[in-house]
Amino acid sequence: MATLKTSDETRIRELMEDRVKFLATKDLEGIVASYAGDIVSFDAVDTLQNSGWDKAMRRAKAWLASYDGPIEYTLKDLNVVAGQDVAFCRCLSRVAGTLEDGRKIDMWVRTTACFRKQDDEWLIVHEHTSVPFDGGSGRALLDLEP
Amino acid sequence: MATLKTSDETRIRELMEDRVKFLATKDLEGIVASYAGDIVSFDAVDTLQNSGWDKAMRRAKAWLASYDGPIEYTLKDLNVVAGQDVAFCRCLSRVAGTLEDGRKIDMWVRTTACFRKQDDEWLIVHEHTSVPFDGGSGRALLDLEP
Repeated sequence: MATLKTSDETRIRELMEDRVKFLATKDLEGIVASYAGDIVSFDAVDTLQNSGWDKAMRRAKAWLASYDGPIEYTLKDLNVVAGQDVAFCRCLSRVAGTLEDGRKIDMWVRTTACFRKQDDEWLIVHEHTSVPFDGGSGRALLDLEP
Repeated sequence: MATLKTSDETRIRELMEDRVKFLATKDLEGIVASYAGDIVSFDAVDTLQNSGWDKAMRRAKAWLASYDGPIEYTLKDLNVVAGQDVAFCRCLSRVAGTLEDGRKIDMWVRTTACFRKQDDEWLIVHEHTSVPFDGGSGRALLDLEP
């Protein structure tokens, strides 16, 4: 029986949209399953860059643990460009929830994810997540909305 | 006579390294020459996203004008992944100089640039530049070093 092959763009879109449920259920394995072994991340907080799957996994684990309850995650303007074995996508994401220390989080971040196809599956080899800052005050802009 | 075709990875590396001189000489045309018409930028400051070549050009122009004299720009850890007509790269960049208002700038930013090949030339369709922030204080981390 013939099967319909999922297009590369559709597959990448699925990988990004899967995060919504992985974050809602705090499914660490689900989140890190799409990370390549040599992933290099530019994260929204704390450090300039982080290299390797182990580091990315530990940071994802700490991020999940920092929230008391689910992380509400909404994707907007997801745009995917996929070639034969190289692809990238960008989106805006609303991140909301309550931290372990009681602080409420509700902010929009920008995400760029860059993929390579390995053994017929797309893996993230680079990811960049951030918020912009205000050049005058030096404060991160956590209340912008698209 | 046979000519050596510059490889895609080499060409993208050149495009990124050209910025060093474009910023030193404040060559706006040079900077925006590699922007695609439909570029979407996630900039380090002020806004979540900016769409289109005109907007990117105006922001680059304002950025150049905000510095009194040249912008010192250094690339580190430039990594390029190029497919047939889709490519991306990441790097860390030191940005240094003196603003028009006299403030000294010397900071490291993260850049991810995403390309499509159009009419045999690589153009940037998406660029993401940022610094991380401190989750506790909410301040942009402008003094990190790689």
